Amino acid sequence: MNPTSTDGHDGQSREDLQESRFPTTLSHPYNKTITMATIAKAAGVSQGAISSLLNDRDYGIRVSEKTRKRVFKACRELGYVPNDLRAVVRMYPELGDSCLLVSGSLRDWATNPFYARILNGIIDTISPAARHITLAEYDENTDYLEHAELLPHPIRSGTASKFICIGAMNFSLVQALIKRDFPVAFLGSDVSIPGVTTIQPDYAEVSRLAIEYLLKAGHRQIAILSGPFGSEDHAIAELNRGIRLCYERSGISFDTQNIIHGDLSFKSGAAAIDVLFSRSEKPTAIFSLSDEAASGAWSQIQKLRLSRPLSIIGCGDAPIADALALTTVHLPAEEMGAEALKDIEARVQKGALLESKKIVLPVHLVERKSSLPAVTL
Amino acid sequence: MNPTSTDGHDGQSREDLQESRFPTTLSHPYNKTITMATIAKAAGVSQGAISSLLNDRDYGIRVSEKTRKRVFKACRELGYVPNDLRAVVRMYPELGDSCLLVSGSLRDWATNPFYARILNGIIDTISPAARHITLAEYDENTDYLEHAELLPHPIRSGTASKFICIGAMNFSLVQALIKRDFPVAFLGSDVSIPGVTTIQPDYAEVSRLAIEYLLKAGHRQIAILSGPFGSEDHAIAELNRGIRLCYERSGISFDTQNIIHGDLSFKSGAAAIDVLFSRSEKPTAIFSLSDEAASGAWSQIQKLRLSRPLSIIGCGDAPIADALALTTVHLPAEEMGAEALKDIEARVQKGALLESKKIVLPVHLVERKSSLPAVTL
Repeated sequence: MNPTSTDGHDGQSREDLQESRFPTTLSHPYNKTITMATIAKAAGVSQGAISSLLNDRDYGIRVSEKTRKRVFKACRELGYVPNDLRAVVRMYPELGDSCLLVSGSLRDWATNPFYARILNGIIDTISPAARHITLAEYDENTDYLEHAELLPHPIRSGTASKFICIGAMNFSLVQALIKRDFPVAFLGSDVSIPGVTTIQPDYAEVSRLAIEYLLKAGHRQIAILSGPFGSEDHAIAELNRGIRLCYERSGISFDTQNIIHGDLSFKSGAAAIDVLFSRSEKPTAIFSLSDEAASGAWSQIQKLRLSRPLSIIGCGDAPIADALALTTVHLPAEEMGAEALKDIEARVQKGALLESKKIVLPVHLVERKSSLPAVTL
Repeated sequence: MNPTSTDGHDGQSREDLQESRFPTTLSHPYNKTITMATIAKAAGVSQGAISSLLNDRDYGIRVSEKTRKRVFKACRELGYVPNDLRAVVRMYPELGDSCLLVSGSLRDWATNPFYARILNGIIDTISPAARHITLAEYDENTDYLEHAELLPHPIRSGTASKFICIGAMNFSLVQALIKRDFPVAFLGSDVSIPGVTTIQPDYAEVSRLAIEYLLKAGHRQIAILSGPFGSEDHAIAELNRGIRLCYERSGISFDTQNIIHGDLSFKSGAAAIDVLFSRSEKPTAIFSLSDEAASGAWSQIQKLRLSRPLSIIGCGDAPIADALALTTVHLPAEEMGAEALKDIEARVQKGALLESKKIVLPVHLVERKSSLPAVTL
């Protein structure tokens, strides 16, 4: 029986079915004349095992891993292309869709400038000839190993094969993907998991750049606009730690009264100014863990027309920072997206799926007007 | 031969293949025991015609439209589910993926607050149980009827069945989708095409709200921060027309010297202030077709510390407008995304694919500090 000539509905032969199904990235053309017997002979296994592998929705787990590898290798070498799209993606994962999995806890992530820049970086890196990506949501608390039926749709449907995750870590999700031999890149995390590439900005360097800049300019009362007290956010925790370490290294004492916890929004930045300037001992500089809060503080300062200069440094390099001439530490959001896509593409091509890799991307300070000592307000 | 028991590779029977492939939204459970003969009898056509329909990648165009409808109806009534994912989507388009098609001319659209809000609106409207959407790019000048092989991947792969388009109109793209019986919603357009729902804000009302507000406040020298001269952008053209009509209705003369063309960025708004205030006759109010340009103008005015009040109204209601307390006309971006998704979902459920519909969403003025006459700078 010729496996390329029928979907099994009536056994009639059909032509042209293998054509232009995908942008062909295989090194040789699809071969239309491979029979099940040919594959069985090439792989040295029974036709039954091959059928089980090609047709089983659960990735051939009823067949041993070794047999699976041998059969898929034989199929690929022969250029055999199954009829079912999901079987194609199982056999040629490089032809499957890329998928951005976003933690459900990231509310309204698409309108957050940082995540929007990451998405932009991913989109720009996809080959223009086939520019598409699937977005899906996962729940951070669901045990996906226990409840595979709750996995995000692009995983269950079997059409996606390359995954980028953003948000809160869910180990069961990552394990479920690895179990299916899919490469995974996790953004904003640094947990070492075999098969997962983690990508994050050099957060320690962000804090170092901001604090050292301000200390060097002679500031000793530096207010910190930090995130919510006790936040589980990885970036906030890393930035906080970086600030403390930087002070420790400098030998200059750090007054924790200068830490203002907030939600890092524009309004929280403006409100922080009101709090700080109601005190007898006022700060001369501010490092904010977000550009939004820094902008709020900067606008509030301009509104109050303070009589002496005050330096502000934000974090992110969001459009509002550029617009308001805010000094900030640039986070490589576009590069995070681009690196993630390149990483999963490269690993699916090489078959190097169980490597664990940690990519830390460089950051830099963008000096604009809000930190210039000469500014009088 | 039992079509649900084989993919045709070896004829062995397999079980459980129809289970949990999709979140089941069909009104009855999938039926696993339908044979090709049963379908042929129910539809009153030959088994050969059925095979052609179910297996032909080109949507059964070798079979008449009438026969196709009859066979698919019979299959649906019987609860027959093909093995191939693409055949499933052809037969049950309500189970296919939703796809956002973005014109390639919209560079960096993901970081544009307006488009990001539309994406947010779409994502929030998708059922949380299966929250996913595919993003893909199209070229505005390609003739997709002539070159079907260049169609965006989610269309060619056959897994998407519901489409939302943003950006420059490409009629051949829309026609290619309609030819495949897919519902299409086009955002930011008002072209009447059978099978297409167009969704846009009430742009005429945007201009009316802004100009009437300023005229009522006594302003007679109102500068307009408009888009590039000769822009083909539909929104800009509509807003410009609305301004002219509003002046015509009011009987107040409109000095076209007050129109400043620019790219509507923050910097262009700041630059416009420098131009306008170098003139002997200075404006007392500004209506900007973007919040970004309005914010740039507003910041520049605050920097220059002008001695007399000046009112500014933006357009969009981007986060920066809220942050800088800018009066603006709110564009219903989230609602556009939500309405688009609801529309394609409803039409694919009802099978009402050839309706032409035009949805114009209401806008409203958000009064903040930049338009208050009492503001002294």
